[in-house]
Amino acid sequence: MSLLAIFAAKLTMAANLDIAALKQQYTTYHDAQRFEGEQLAGLYDPVEYINSIGSKYMRPLLLQMAVSVCGGNLQDSLPAAYAVQLFHNFSLLHDDIMDDAPLRRGKATVHEKWNTATAILSGDVMLVYVYKYLLQLDTPRLKSILDAFTQTSIEVCEGQQLDMDFETQAHVTPENYLRMIRLKTAVLPAAGLKIGAWLAGADDTVAQALYDYGINLGLAFQINDDLLDAYGDPTKVGKQQGGDILQCKKTLLYLRAIERAGEQQESWINEYTQSLDNKVELWKQRMSDCGAEAATRAEADHYTQLAHDALRNSGLSEAQCAPFHHYADTILHRTF
Amino acid sequence: MSLLAIFAAKLTMAANLDIAALKQQYTTYHDAQRFEGEQLAGLYDPVEYINSIGSKYMRPLLLQMAVSVCGGNLQDSLPAAYAVQLFHNFSLLHDDIMDDAPLRRGKATVHEKWNTATAILSGDVMLVYVYKYLLQLDTPRLKSILDAFTQTSIEVCEGQQLDMDFETQAHVTPENYLRMIRLKTAVLPAAGLKIGAWLAGADDTVAQALYDYGINLGLAFQINDDLLDAYGDPTKVGKQQGGDILQCKKTLLYLRAIERAGEQQESWINEYTQSLDNKVELWKQRMSDCGAEAATRAEADHYTQLAHDALRNSGLSEAQCAPFHHYADTILHRTF
Repeated sequence: MSLLAIFAAKLTMAANLDIAALKQQYTTYHDAQRFEGEQLAGLYDPVEYINSIGSKYMRPLLLQMAVSVCGGNLQDSLPAAYAVQLFHNFSLLHDDIMDDAPLRRGKATVHEKWNTATAILSGDVMLVYVYKYLLQLDTPRLKSILDAFTQTSIEVCEGQQLDMDFETQAHVTPENYLRMIRLKTAVLPAAGLKIGAWLAGADDTVAQALYDYGINLGLAFQINDDLLDAYGDPTKVGKQQGGDILQCKKTLLYLRAIERAGEQQESWINEYTQSLDNKVELWKQRMSDCGAEAATRAEADHYTQLAHDALRNSGLSEAQCAPFHHYADTILHRTF
Repeated sequence: MSLLAIFAAKLTMAANLDIAALKQQYTTYHDAQRFEGEQLAGLYDPVEYINSIGSKYMRPLLLQMAVSVCGGNLQDSLPAAYAVQLFHNFSLLHDDIMDDAPLRRGKATVHEKWNTATAILSGDVMLVYVYKYLLQLDTPRLKSILDAFTQTSIEVCEGQQLDMDFETQAHVTPENYLRMIRLKTAVLPAAGLKIGAWLAGADDTVAQALYDYGINLGLAFQINDDLLDAYGDPTKVGKQQGGDILQCKKTLLYLRAIERAGEQQESWINEYTQSLDNKVELWKQRMSDCGAEAATRAEADHYTQLAHDALRNSGLSEAQCAPFHHYADTILHRTF
């Protein structure tokens, strides 16, 4: 059972909100959407494919949680939840071309199964369909939603660019890494939360608080992910321990170590790019000894705290905040 | 002087509308737009590049003509005009990757100058910015404009897919070719005309009539282009005669010939894919002899007529229609 599957199971028990029912409602809607056109299988088959290869639907679920907690109509919000997932799938499709990734969620990527031209064009039409779904929403806040989604989409592209740039840059600062993960991964679920609040008629204070919750949750989740990759229990994390280290990924853990390397900085940077038999153990030890592990754990805790604080300052009642506190506890309290 | 430059010069004399002033106003706005972000040159430099490598700006000009003729505010409409051009440039950028084209308007394409990943991501962010510009419009018809633009964008993607499919299909029908050019090239200027009319407060009848004018103008223009490539005066057309024939392009002229080939159909289809010393002369003669040339000329005339008819049935006055009639005359009455 993968880590995500374990989370999903735990989420069904989220305090005073039936997450399983939310997910069922979303999945039914998701599976019912069709992309087709006369003699256009070449364009739309890849869209159907990427939309069907499995997801935990965390982003649309967060949006629907916001709708539910703020007293909105879940059925009417489904096009927004779908738009968020569709944008995520579009970004995966195009990112996989850019990263030349052969597999996505265990299946062949679109550019491998078809070809690059197909993957580009099918991704493009998905991005346009994101707006087509958003434009289905019958809400007085449509303009705000479209503005927020557009800004978020730009930021996700910017995050992907920074991520690609970092691969070829020897010196990446922790601050720039945090900026990158904020843009690439945190803003989309955060925007979904804000949009859900707006759809339910919540005021801008609540919408912004849920957005801030989403940003900090996303940052804490990504930093935890870096820690889990190095120090997590591989039987529970569900992937090879130290994969990031073996692939020379510039995680926050690594960047906090480099920051502490003193005179050895250049030699550590150089060494990290090389293959060594004991590379994982060497770097785990080094990152612990220099204080990078502890600093990174403190950072994950910091953003977790900020996520909870955002809820407390939202103006929502304790009962309304409870599902979000519970959600954060579930996805962030993972076994190291 | 290229054919497009000659058109542009003629257009400055369009009846009772100062096209040169419209173009100057648009160009000033276009050149003032900036795409930038901290440490994001990798993302935005290619956008600046493709936006600056020269264009006749026919699509934004048609939109601004509609605004002007319908009595709207030209300055307020500039973000819409820019969005249409930006979408066009986005589609060129991504099409060039798909077609593996080395040059665009005489300059290196983005994926050649940078790389494919950059070209994909920069194109993506341009598509999002199209919506950012549209969302700047202060108009009661914003929802209609966004709906129309979204539908048009989907259609342009569909047209590109059909065009790519045709390259590997032996049997393409003239009907499918017409569908392809309608989607790939005619709907965008047509949507720009409709949006311009809406921005000026024109009713849906006028907006739809200008859309129909744009569609038929686009079809006539593209069919004329096919004819010019084979039968035009190369000194006036500005490119090698018979380029389409040499590149085995399935133009309407070719497809109308194949339709008339009778028992020789398969051998003609096969022969068209081959290189021959006298291929251009052979096919020009063949397309004339079988009646394909005359049929194609009649089709160009047919869509030209439909474009003029759409104006006559628009409810606009003769004076209001005059610039559009004149525009059609200018870009369609080319020397064969």
